[in-house]
Parts: sequence; C-alpha cells; structure tokens
Amino acid sequence: MSRLYFKYGTMGSSKSAQALMCKFNYEQKGMKVLLVKPELDNRGDDGETPKVRSRIGLVAECKTISAEQSFVDLFDQAIASGGCDCIIVDEAQFCTPTQIDQLKQLTKHVPVLCYGLMTDFRCKLFKGSKRLVELADSLQEIKSVCRCGRKSTVNARYINGRCVDDGPIVFIGGDESYENLCYWCWQEELAKGKNK
Amino acid sequence: MSRLYFKYGTMGSSKSAQALMCKFNYEQKGMKVLLVKPELDNRGDDGETPKVRSRIGLVAECKTISAEQSFVDLFDQAIASGGCDCIIVDEAQFCTPTQIDQLKQLTKHVPVLCYGLMTDFRCKLFKGSKRLVELADSLQEIKSVCRCGRKSTVNARYINGRCVDDGPIVFIGGDESYENLCYWCWQEELAKGKNK
Amino acid sequence: MSRLYFKYGTMGSSKSAQALMCKFNYEQKGMKVLLVKPELDNRGDDGETPKVRSRIGLVAECKTISAEQSFVDLFDQAIASGGCDCIIVDEAQFCTPTQIDQLKQLTKHVPVLCYGLMTDFRCKLFKGSKRLVELADSLQEIKSVCRCGRKSTVNARYINGRCVDDGPIVFIGGDESYENLCYWCWQEELAKGKNK
Amino acid sequence: MSRLYFKYGTMGSSKSAQALMCKFNYEQKGMKVLLVKPELDNRGDDGETPKVRSRIGLVAECKTISAEQSFVDLFDQAIASGGCDCIIVDEAQFCTPTQIDQLKQLTKHVPVLCYGLMTDFRCKLFKGSKRLVELADSLQEIKSVCRCGRKSTVNARYINGRCVDDGPIVFIGGDESYENLCYWCWQEELAKGKNK
Repeated sequence: MSRLYFKYGTMGSSKSAQALMCKFNYEQKGMKVLLVKPELDNRGDDGETPKVRSRIGLVAECKTISAEQSFVDLFDQAIASGGCDCIIVDEAQFCTPTQIDQLKQLTKHVPVLCYGLMTDFRCKLFKGSKRLVELADSLQEIKSVCRCGRKSTVNARYINGRCVDDGPIVFIGGDESYENLCYWCWQEELAKGKNK
Repeated sequence: MSRLYFKYGTMGSSKSAQALMCKFNYEQKGMKVLLVKPELDNRGDDGETPKVRSRIGLVAECKTISAEQSFVDLFDQAIASGGCDCIIVDEAQFCTPTQIDQLKQLTKHVPVLCYGLMTDFRCKLFKGSKRLVELADSLQEIKSVCRCGRKSTVNARYINGRCVDDGPIVFIGGDESYENLCYWCWQEELAKGKNK
Repeated sequence: MSRLYFKYGTMGSSKSAQALMCKFNYEQKGMKVLLVKPELDNRGDDGETPKVRSRIGLVAECKTISAEQSFVDLFDQAIASGGCDCIIVDEAQFCTPTQIDQLKQLTKHVPVLCYGLMTDFRCKLFKGSKRLVELADSLQEIKSVCRCGRKSTVNARYINGRCVDDGPIVFIGGDESYENLCYWCWQEELAKGKNK
Repeated sequence: MSRLYFKYGTMGSSKSAQALMCKFNYEQKGMKVLLVKPELDNRGDDGETPKVRSRIGLVAECKTISAEQSFVDLFDQAIASGGCDCIIVDEAQFCTPTQIDQLKQLTKHVPVLCYGLMTDFRCKLFKGSKRLVELADSLQEIKSVCRCGRKSTVNARYINGRCVDDGPIVFIGGDESYENLCYWCWQEELAKGKNK
C-alpha cells in the first residue's frame, strides 16, 4: 500500500512550486507522474493546454479533472499511455469528497500527493480538504510567513480594499484580492474592515 | 502570542497519557496547568472528582466543561485560584466549535494543548476536531500501530462483534467496542461485517 | 524493510515514559517487544532485574546490553524465546556506534525505536546519537519546556550549584545535577557560573 | 529570539530550490533576505557574481563566505546596506562549526534557515551538519525518492561507475558522480562495486 499525503498551506506558500518540484524529483528517477488540477481552477490557462504554474516561475503541463470525472479513469488512461508511478494533485481543496475517496483507493497502486489550501477566507475547511483530513495518511504543513513575521495560517479576502469574512465562496465582480496572514493580523484587518 | 496545538490520534494511541505527561513536565518546571475534559466524557468517573485516566495507569484530577460553559470562565477561575501557565484539554473532539474559538482566544495568554480523536467510527471529522483543524497553529499526529503493523488511522466500531460504519454517533445498548485499525484492515472488517 | 527511529529530547522530556507507552501500545496489539537499555545506565536498578523507569511513575523490566554485546544476539535470543515484533532502546545515546549499525541491520526484520539524548552538557553529540543521526530513517524531537516557557534544547550540568560546560563526561564525586534549559537560559546560567 | 533551522536532505532533494522559494516568499512580504553559500561550493559560478542554482531552473545571486570569514560581518554589512530580516544559507554542511555558532548567535536578531546535506558519501556527518544538529532549534527533513520508490537517505558516490564508500572527501581526477539512494540500495551498490 502507498500513502495519501495532504500538503497544505496558505496562498503564496509555494504549494504549486512544491508540487512541481516533487514531479521533477520523481522524473529525475525515471518515474512517470500524473499531474492533475481540478477544472475549476483555470488561472493562467489560455484556452490551450492546461498547466500548473507557480508564482516563482515554474510551470508544467497537467491534466484537468471536472467534478463529474473520476481519478480512477485518469489513472487508467495514464497507465494505458506510458505508465504512472505517482499522482500529484494541485489545488486539491477543489476536489469533491468522492474524488478524494477515489484517490485513497488509488494508493493501493501508487503514492498520491495532494497540495492545497486547508481553509477558505472565512477560516472554514474546503470540502475537498475536509475529506483529505479524514482520509490522508499524513498531513504536512507548507509554512509561510505573515507580514508580521509570524507563521501565516489564514487566507484573508479583500473586497475593494476591505478585509471581509463573509460573502459567497466564489466572488464575481469588483476588485478581489487575497493575502496570507496570521490569525491575529487577520483579526486586526477584519476589525479595520468593519470600521470602514 | 502562544499557540493552539491539536495532537490527534486514534483510540489507544496514548493521547490521555501524553496529556498527563505534558502536565507533569510543566509542573516539574513550577508552572500551573489547567487540565480539562468535556463533561460528555465521564468514563471512569465514579460520582466523585473527575479525572483524566490513561490505559497505561496514569491518572490526574481535572476540571470538566459542559457544552454550555466557557473556557474563558474556567481560565479566569484558574487565574483567580493560583494561576494558569498552560491549558491542556483531553478528549477535545467533544468540545463545541464555540469552545475551540474560546481556546484560540486564550492563546493570547497561555499555550493551549488539545488532545483528541480526529474522526469517528465512520471516518468523519468530529465537530470539535473540525474546528481545531481550522484554528490550530500546529497539527501533530500521535501515532499508533494497527494489528497488521501499519499505522492505525481509523477508529473502528464493533456492534455485537460486527464491524459497522453506520448508526448513531452515541450508541446505546448492546455490546459496543472499538479498535484502532489502518484503513485497509478497516475495509476488510467492514466487508466481513456486511457478510455476517 | 522496517525503519530505524531516533526520538530525541532533553532530560526530563519524558523519553523513558514515551518508550514505555510505545511498548504498551505494541503489546496491546498482541505483539512482542524487546526493551533494552545500555548497561552503563544503571540508575534505579537495585542489583535485581534491570528496569526502564520514568519520572512520572511508569516502569517495566528490560534487557541490558554492555558495550561488547551485540543487538543481533539479543534479537536472536528474543526470537528463540517467544518472538520479537519490535525493538525499543532507552538511553540510546550510550550505545556504541557499532551497536547502532547492528540496529540498522535489524530493521530488515522489525522496526527499531531508539529514545535518547542528542547532546551532552557541553552541547556536543553523544557518540551513539551521532551514529543514530547518520543512520536513522526518521529523527523526531520529544519536546519539553524550559523554565522560561521556551522549548528546552540543552542538558545543563550543575556542579555544586554552578552551571558548567567543561569537565569529564562522566562526573565522579561532589554534587552534580542537571536541568533542561533553552539555549539562552543556558548561556545566562553559564555566565553566572563563571562569575561565581 | 528567532530560530535556527536545519533543513537537510540528500542530493537532488531540491534543497537549493527550497532555499530560493523561501527567499521568494520573504521578499513577497517586503522583507530583506541575506542569501549565502560557502565559498568552497562554486558549482555553476563563472568567475562572475556567485549564485545559488537549483536543478529545476531557479537561480538567485548570493553572497559567499570563506572558512575564515564571519557571518556576523556579513550580517552587519547587510544591515548597513538596506537591512536583513532573514538569513538563508545553502550548502550549509560546508560551513565551519565556528560559523554555525555565529549563526546561532544571530538568531537573537533574525531567523536563520540552513539547507544542506546531513551526511557524506560514507554516511558520516559533515562537520557543519554535526554542529547544526547540536545547535538547531528545529531539524526538518526534505524528502526525496530513491530509484526503488523508498525514501532516499544516502548520497552514494560513484568513481568510474563503481559505488565506493572510501577515498578522500574531496575527490580530484577521474569520473565522479553521485546518486541519492536508500540505505538498502546503497548496500547493494557497494556490494556490486566491490565485486567489480
């Protein structure tokens, strides 16, 4: 049996870069990697081949998976077309719970490494992350630093410059941005946001 | 700022013993520890002083907290009656999400160490554990071994000798028991249970 | 292949208690544990059966090993007299490098868990610990708290009440004691010691 | 007080890439990073500005330090010329023990992250790594995979295609190469090497 890993971190903690380096290391050993991201996450794709991109500049082509598709099918296709020694999933928080169960089953065959956010801008678990916490053999934090020097643990959302912890999960329209903060800087920012 | 720790493990992984040793180590340094368990968990109490008990034989008196009570009040009482340098919570999965938020706020003053189960017999997060995953500064696994030698990650429930993954969370009547298993031994036991 | 673990911590960090709980957990699953300590460490033995004792009160009989003996022989004897599913070594810093190599070879058969100090009162690696760092598959810190609230990382020696970082490794005569401190409290204590 | 981290891994485990991503993350938060490598390690420098380079393609300019120089001087210079919020050292195994002591002292001011090998081709600690194990507040393994799928823990040396565990630390002449292996594949390769 292989293992299901959930490597979680805040935005900007280099999760995608870690996923790409993990792929690189496996390939250096002559192994085949199936790199996948949920279809929802189409940042940076230009109507062409989907890619996993990191802020620091690393990039690699990947497969996408829609909420209706199965990882078992993707794995079977990978086996049929050259082999698969390892599955790496980026933005795994957007997988459905059912898909995480599929990944768990696939650890009968190969190790599965999932990279993603633990919580959303309200500090609540994503559905995919919740299932990963329930099923993963290993939870590993990818650490990054808050502007104050402490460890960041929260993905703060700003709408039109104001830090908010409510509103729809998927925001449409207006100027939206995110910053990874520690819990205490986040509380301060929320307090400031409410006074604006 | 101090930190909120969630030290999780399966049943029989020595969580209570770890909690008691942590208390012992703080006290050896002359510090005051507030040891608490949720009122729900009254195993081993005999109508007298509530206690945290470990299978290996360690035991210590503790405070209890009901679902309606606040950790802030318990902390204030501890400060008033001799001081509090550290809060340790056993069986933390039974805390309410609101109580976990209280513990997070108390890390402004002292470190908080929560020991508990991550998932129930269905491999679903407990409500208290869910909030701990969302708010803890550090998730640390207390490892234990399955009967097959692999790491145990599941708390399997047996009703009248049959392994089950449905039924009420709190079971009343009949012969109920638990065993910490790895996911794959659990799947086998469930399959056997369904064929009985 | 199984793994060689080095679980290190300062004095008073509950290493022996952890070793005993690990033994307990294996035995709860019906497995046989070979518990060993180096002969050098005879604290608490009274000319009778050697034991591993923890400050919190846990205790268990154990085998001892002298610097000339081999872990392979101890393992073979254990296999011959009932079996061995796991080897646990307490005070592993006192093992010889050759004995650590023997333990590495034995991970072909069973997991080996070594508990011990990383460094002596001068903040230098013990010979056994050095070899463990070189060969272990996993280094895991058993954390404990300094009197100041920070993590302790140093085993400070006091001779007649004065903190010292020189003198023989094994001290004879006079009043010797130890305290686990963080590096900065240790530096302060050494400075005070030099001014006495 | 900040912390001294030793992030160790075998060759090809992406240590340099991790060091560069850590620098990137600090700089994204507007902080100043002092990136240093020991002068001994001049791979990839072309008589021009020294650089830290990773196999996956990341690269950044860095300072170098000779065995006679002091990290305290480098830190003072960095403070004088724009500031320093964090020190990152690549190939830290080549630092002298004295330099590691300097880095420990500098954690009074900023966090220090050291990336490097734990052991050489004989599976013996490097002198810099030994001092890091003695003084670091945190030891963190950067994992990578052996050709067999297990975790790699050994840096195997090949001279003219033959795996060897003796000879000078710094090899001159002939065809030298390295591969990160697990202990058991390494033992096999050494046995093959001896039969050639």
